[in-house]
Amino acid sequence: MELPEFQDIEKAHELIKPFVHRTPVLSSQSVNAITGGNLLFKCENFQKVGAFKFRGACNAVFSLDEAQLLKGVCTHSSGNHAAALALAARLRGVPAYIVMPENASAIKIKAVESYGGQITFCRPTLESREATLAEVASKTGATEIHPYNNFQVICGQGTAAKELIEDYGDFDIMLCPVGGGGLLSGTAISSRALNPRGLVVAAEPEGADDACRSFHAKKLIPSVNPKTIADGLLTSVGEINFRIIQRKTDEIVTVSERGIIRAMRMIWERMKIIVEPSSAVPLGAILENKVDVKNKKVGIILSGGNVNLEHLPF
Amino acid sequence: MELPEFQDIEKAHELIKPFVHRTPVLSSQSVNAITGGNLLFKCENFQKVGAFKFRGACNAVFSLDEAQLLKGVCTHSSGNHAAALALAARLRGVPAYIVMPENASAIKIKAVESYGGQITFCRPTLESREATLAEVASKTGATEIHPYNNFQVICGQGTAAKELIEDYGDFDIMLCPVGGGGLLSGTAISSRALNPRGLVVAAEPEGADDACRSFHAKKLIPSVNPKTIADGLLTSVGEINFRIIQRKTDEIVTVSERGIIRAMRMIWERMKIIVEPSSAVPLGAILENKVDVKNKKVGIILSGGNVNLEHLPF
Repeated sequence: MELPEFQDIEKAHELIKPFVHRTPVLSSQSVNAITGGNLLFKCENFQKVGAFKFRGACNAVFSLDEAQLLKGVCTHSSGNHAAALALAARLRGVPAYIVMPENASAIKIKAVESYGGQITFCRPTLESREATLAEVASKTGATEIHPYNNFQVICGQGTAAKELIEDYGDFDIMLCPVGGGGLLSGTAISSRALNPRGLVVAAEPEGADDACRSFHAKKLIPSVNPKTIADGLLTSVGEINFRIIQRKTDEIVTVSERGIIRAMRMIWERMKIIVEPSSAVPLGAILENKVDVKNKKVGIILSGGNVNLEHLPF
Repeated sequence: MELPEFQDIEKAHELIKPFVHRTPVLSSQSVNAITGGNLLFKCENFQKVGAFKFRGACNAVFSLDEAQLLKGVCTHSSGNHAAALALAARLRGVPAYIVMPENASAIKIKAVESYGGQITFCRPTLESREATLAEVASKTGATEIHPYNNFQVICGQGTAAKELIEDYGDFDIMLCPVGGGGLLSGTAISSRALNPRGLVVAAEPEGADDACRSFHAKKLIPSVNPKTIADGLLTSVGEINFRIIQRKTDEIVTVSERGIIRAMRMIWERMKIIVEPSSAVPLGAILENKVDVKNKKVGIILSGGNVNLEHLPF
């Protein structure tokens, strides 16, 4: 299968620009003083549906042809992609069929419903999710939009780093979290094209380190029983994503749970913004000296801000 | 005593501009959908020391003459003003003597120390605070900077609304919280000058409603045992502040504790930013239908973002 190139991200950006927020970029003198770097945070927690996922979902839906659009889109997801796809479909006035595990959190279910998503519940196993999705797709004819292992989704996610570099110039390091690899693969393509002398580095929880292990083994090694507070990063890297990551990423480092929580708290307390644990993984890597940012200009994508305020880790 | 005019706020702005953040303005489609208004939030939670208080403290310190500066500044405060004054003094390389009650929170004490403030502890009564401050002032010759009942502090606080109107044009309503009245009096002067057809409205917790009662009685009625989660608004309105408020404010409304917490949660969840309870009071007033914002363009000053993450009300 053909891999996306930067020109595909440019096309995606033109398509989704009227519908996504060009999110602000924040910095903090006190975080800079602590880390010794010049850190610029791209705030995708302020993106629609509270996460960068809306970029990819929007591009995937808007790239369908009229005949496909009429039948709608479908996916299985218990997270931000479900809400993002539901909103993207609603903007085009087409149905979004979302398969969710019956134990999905009430907050996530409510979010999908509020964007008009049509939910089908399944048992909380990958088998049941996939079987239920196949059934929904065959019944409705809807096009499946995978949360990350999808050409157009990757192109959409790449627009965040594109905006960051357009708005702030060259970076020494571009840093983002990695779960399924949608954000990282898109970020790597944009960064290599617009900022070729900068490094592309990803950070991953120690408890869900399949991307790091795969990257160093040079072959895809899926997660077994991943466990981390960064619930957006539990998934294993996708095949298309991995092929891009292998070619365009310089390093993948891992972070302890304690480092993630410390970084999340630092962002909340010092920067006064709400980020979910997954967003704090890159700063966690810096705080644990896994990435040397001393006197360097570093772009960091804050992936999202959807947290349950009743279950905070501090 | 002479009251500050808009030209004094302009002068203050020139003086402090290089040192304060021109804070961003955020809006939220979902909060607009809920309230029916076009609400623009001026994010002073992103200001240095995490609150608008830095503007006033900065202007007060920078307005002193060389002889005064040499002897430093002093105040009694257990809140944001203490940290703001300590940082403002440090920027000029002069001492800040802060009198704090011995039961002040460890976080607030640490903040003042981190900005180089020299703390003298006292008993947690107004008498002890004032007596200790008088002693410190007489021993050091430092100039007292009152947190709100101070000409230059009021001028500094007025720069937030000035920026908001400069950046976003005319408003139908300018809305802010009121405690001691430093922010409200400064906001009212700027709004009357730059946005004369707009209303100036303040919101106050029901449990600390001295400004509302004073405003309607047309005389200063201090609080007796105020109680509210909005800890920045426990103080009674100052004398200079009240004279300005009487002349330049259209209405003061009150909000229940439940309304404050609901609004705070809405800002955290929908806007993904951290605000302290005092900041949520204006949105609380809107949610409780105390201010009609339907189809109106409304400027709201989010006063600060200093909260203890271990003691959240939700």
